[in-house]
Amino acid sequence: MKKNSSVSIRLCDRFFAPRQKRNLTVTIPEALQRCRETGRLDAFNLHYRPGSDIPEPHIYWDSDVAKVMEGMAYVSSDSPEIASMLEKMVDKVVSAQQPDGYLNTHFSVVNQDKRWSNLYNGHELYCAGHLMEAAVAHFHATGSRLFLDAMCRFADYICEYFSADGVPGYPGHEEIELALFKLYKATGNKKYLDQAKLFIDRRGTEPNYFVKYEHVDPETLYVRQAHLPAREQKEAVGHAVRAVYFYSGMADIAFETGDEELLQRCRELFDSIVDSKMFITGGIGSSQIYESLGNSLDLVPERSYAESCASIGLIFFASRMLKIFGDGKYADVIEKCIFNGAISGLSLEGDKFFYANLLSCHRNSSAIGNVTTTRQKWYKTSCCPTSYCRFLPQIGNFCYRVEEERVFVDIPVSAEISIGEHFVKVTSEYPYDGRITLEIPDGGNFEVNFRIPSWCKKYTVPEAGDISGNYWRIKKNFAPGEKYEFLLEMPVTLIYSAVPSLSGKAAVMRGPLVYCVEKTADDPVSPFAIQLTFENNFSVIEGDFLMPGCKVIKFPCKISSGPDRIYSDEAPGFTPGEALAIPYALWQNRGEAEMSVFFPYQVK
Amino acid sequence: MKKNSSVSIRLCDRFFAPRQKRNLTVTIPEALQRCRETGRLDAFNLHYRPGSDIPEPHIYWDSDVAKVMEGMAYVSSDSPEIASMLEKMVDKVVSAQQPDGYLNTHFSVVNQDKRWSNLYNGHELYCAGHLMEAAVAHFHATGSRLFLDAMCRFADYICEYFSADGVPGYPGHEEIELALFKLYKATGNKKYLDQAKLFIDRRGTEPNYFVKYEHVDPETLYVRQAHLPAREQKEAVGHAVRAVYFYSGMADIAFETGDEELLQRCRELFDSIVDSKMFITGGIGSSQIYESLGNSLDLVPERSYAESCASIGLIFFASRMLKIFGDGKYADVIEKCIFNGAISGLSLEGDKFFYANLLSCHRNSSAIGNVTTTRQKWYKTSCCPTSYCRFLPQIGNFCYRVEEERVFVDIPVSAEISIGEHFVKVTSEYPYDGRITLEIPDGGNFEVNFRIPSWCKKYTVPEAGDISGNYWRIKKNFAPGEKYEFLLEMPVTLIYSAVPSLSGKAAVMRGPLVYCVEKTADDPVSPFAIQLTFENNFSVIEGDFLMPGCKVIKFPCKISSGPDRIYSDEAPGFTPGEALAIPYALWQNRGEAEMSVFFPYQVK
Repeated sequence: MKKNSSVSIRLCDRFFAPRQKRNLTVTIPEALQRCRETGRLDAFNLHYRPGSDIPEPHIYWDSDVAKVMEGMAYVSSDSPEIASMLEKMVDKVVSAQQPDGYLNTHFSVVNQDKRWSNLYNGHELYCAGHLMEAAVAHFHATGSRLFLDAMCRFADYICEYFSADGVPGYPGHEEIELALFKLYKATGNKKYLDQAKLFIDRRGTEPNYFVKYEHVDPETLYVRQAHLPAREQKEAVGHAVRAVYFYSGMADIAFETGDEELLQRCRELFDSIVDSKMFITGGIGSSQIYESLGNSLDLVPERSYAESCASIGLIFFASRMLKIFGDGKYADVIEKCIFNGAISGLSLEGDKFFYANLLSCHRNSSAIGNVTTTRQKWYKTSCCPTSYCRFLPQIGNFCYRVEEERVFVDIPVSAEISIGEHFVKVTSEYPYDGRITLEIPDGGNFEVNFRIPSWCKKYTVPEAGDISGNYWRIKKNFAPGEKYEFLLEMPVTLIYSAVPSLSGKAAVMRGPLVYCVEKTADDPVSPFAIQLTFENNFSVIEGDFLMPGCKVIKFPCKISSGPDRIYSDEAPGFTPGEALAIPYALWQNRGEAEMSVFFPYQVK
Repeated sequence: MKKNSSVSIRLCDRFFAPRQKRNLTVTIPEALQRCRETGRLDAFNLHYRPGSDIPEPHIYWDSDVAKVMEGMAYVSSDSPEIASMLEKMVDKVVSAQQPDGYLNTHFSVVNQDKRWSNLYNGHELYCAGHLMEAAVAHFHATGSRLFLDAMCRFADYICEYFSADGVPGYPGHEEIELALFKLYKATGNKKYLDQAKLFIDRRGTEPNYFVKYEHVDPETLYVRQAHLPAREQKEAVGHAVRAVYFYSGMADIAFETGDEELLQRCRELFDSIVDSKMFITGGIGSSQIYESLGNSLDLVPERSYAESCASIGLIFFASRMLKIFGDGKYADVIEKCIFNGAISGLSLEGDKFFYANLLSCHRNSSAIGNVTTTRQKWYKTSCCPTSYCRFLPQIGNFCYRVEEERVFVDIPVSAEISIGEHFVKVTSEYPYDGRITLEIPDGGNFEVNFRIPSWCKKYTVPEAGDISGNYWRIKKNFAPGEKYEFLLEMPVTLIYSAVPSLSGKAAVMRGPLVYCVEKTADDPVSPFAIQLTFENNFSVIEGDFLMPGCKVIKFPCKISSGPDRIYSDEAPGFTPGEALAIPYALWQNRGEAEMSVFFPYQVK
């Protein structure tokens, strides 16, 4: 087994694999269609002129197209149609590049004289970063350097313009840091690494660029993580998506450059999110104002923002931390997001999206702007729909890792992992069942690591092998067909919280899955009428009506019959009843629904 | 007793009267000081020029000065100092009037060519309305027509500009409707009534003025109550303060013109607020976005906006409805606001203010913009502080009404009501005690009405007299010194709610007062650790440490000792303990505090 030589991770589970398939047939095609209809694609023709019929390219349009292209590159080997479409898009995008290397559809035809004049809000470096990520993905998928070289020219121009002696700015929406890092890894050109480091080191230093050159109110600098130098940031603050993109780039660069101080900050920033600013679903962003992370423990289910992109971004950050430190606690967060708050934004059909993910929704829940109570086909700001195009194909990489002679089973969904001439096969009904079989059909000499999730209190692992940290590990010359059986017991568990707004309430979890109760046309029990009982006799039953292989939870509870007025001095009446809890990620796939994750519990 | 001849209502209770006194010595002087410091007062000199050192007058500054002046007029007979200061301010304000009658400090020196160009956001008609209200108050207080005549000239100009044949606009922030009505009442000039009616009838009609002339997004018209014609509005929506100011003006005009259709709308809009959009404190505005009323039952205590001005505005609306329909249900709402959500914005010292009134606040509660977790001396948008200057002196008029030969005791706080040669004296410790003595020291032939509040389930009223609707009534020739005793029993009561986010929780009320638990340096029990028990043995005890005469509530409860992590599968431990509940309106007068109004309760 050579170092990451021809590694392929193919999911064949029933939770993710169907969504990955629908990405090719539904999610990507639908996103492309929206990009066409709205003018995002043709914006690269640069035909827009003030007063013309052509829609004015918006400052963040390029990023949407780039993210779909990145997703298309990941799946291009599975779909000749997508592969050929991608080539045409690459030609179109590259044709919009200016002679100096600059590429941005908005600033090339609107406000041409305003290039780089609004780093705080203009999204130019953000769009550039997504184009670079798409180009790297295209290069890896096809071997063609056309897109990559064009983006290197763009990056060269950026490196010169924002050089140590140049304009001392940095992006208002982070992304280019991690993109430049990918460009460096793809090309070996250290200049890109240095520029990424420069962007990170500059952020929040005095005199503050945004204040000095763009007259930004110092009180809102934290929204862009620009209130302090990176090396002094210990609490994760501000716009949730920007924050986790920033920290992802920071982790990349800190690890590559052996920057222990910055790595320590990454650890602290990660803990700050997970210990105090994350919803139980792995959603982040507790404030609808500024789409921001909010204050510690200020997590209100009825007003959660929990942007789909933010939970996906938290996976990006956590996966880097996992690779760097190997600590299973980072995989715990990936797992939490991947099965709950990061996937809840996508309908089972793959064609509709939540931008914000509420944790409590009733029929009159307030829906303003990007907060909607039903999944939408598209949003004016369409970062979330396009995020899924590129997130879905990567899921295998968040479940399995291969490092030199070692395979890591972080999240044991059914999968086939090829590593050079070797082959590992994992069979399970995870996340619905904790029985996992790991097989090495062809044998081989290498190491297998199997993670014990932190939610799991009782488990059985093969006697051969050691437990170290959160991993069961075995290193040997496997005989062909050797098999290992694991059991992660997953009883239904009530989860309590130190969040003040959750006082007196508990959530229902099983394994890595957060459950919710939804009221639909088929299921008339209101989640807001439910009181948990002392007994909590949970029965885990088939939930195929939702999704093949799904398990749902039935439990006796008390159901209130009042009050029927907004305020009443009559205590509600309670009758014994039964509630059905379904995985949070799957809510509102049976039509419009009322939903809650938290329920009042009884105290003995 | 002649028709409203020399009616005077003097409160001598311990709840409001001390605050009214401090209005003269603290609240008004402090507000004046802030108006001076910030340039609001000197703005009327019209000396600002672009580039000068003088602060640029903001579009809503005039309204702040006008509201303080209105308050000063109400108390000018009690303070020669305030009376003389007011005269100087009147001179200054009037000196800023343009030859054509127009008066606005912003549009007279900034954007002079933009007069009336931004009715949606410009606040011109709003400021004009507050100046008119101040002028009417000044006229009634002093008999001087100087200010009143100036404002009539302004109103004449407005009536011509916005006449039926003129510009078909109407205010983006309602207020002038009710102000023109006051001007009509003070002058008898029916033109002002007609213009107020025109503004109301125009609102929301097609073609929509804001869309046609100001290119406003039709989706945000509801924020200004301009989504539908007034006669088609049945659900209260949009910006909470604007809404209740609008409905107040609507009620004035509908009643005066005998417009039954519009009166029916007023009833429906009122019910829409009270039945589904009002916090238990009488606060309104459930959405921090657009400061708006929000959707039915979407009332989240942790994210309440409940602007002080909005609850005060709801009192304005309710007091008009009470006068028109005489139904005690309108007084119930006045009472709820006056003792809870409308007064909670003011510190006991009278010098600090909440703009937004949270119903749940922990040490990390999110504080953005006008949402603060501690009362502030002032806000950049200072409508709330200046609202108290004019609200406090009017409180007597919201507790007592005199109509021809009838006195209405709507809220029986201790007071002396003089009506011509007659005199009614009410003695009580209301709202802390339900025993009320009503005395007619000098006798006289008239009618007394005493309201039975809807919260009161058990009461004793004098045998003489009848009960009709929500009022006990007696009409006779009273002998001098005649006395009547009332008892409104006020046990501590748990209040339950149909609001989804309050499922499993209850609030503690006693009489009209909403109680809360606050954690302060003195009182270490966290409101978020409390679980109510089945027994609910509430003891009502002295609370003089908060405010003389105050009653607080002690009750045994269960206190949780966990979880200490954001999410935990260990159920919190509970120990028996005791909690202290204080009136919500008085929270955070003992230093910074965590506070909650709602507590989990047990189900049998």
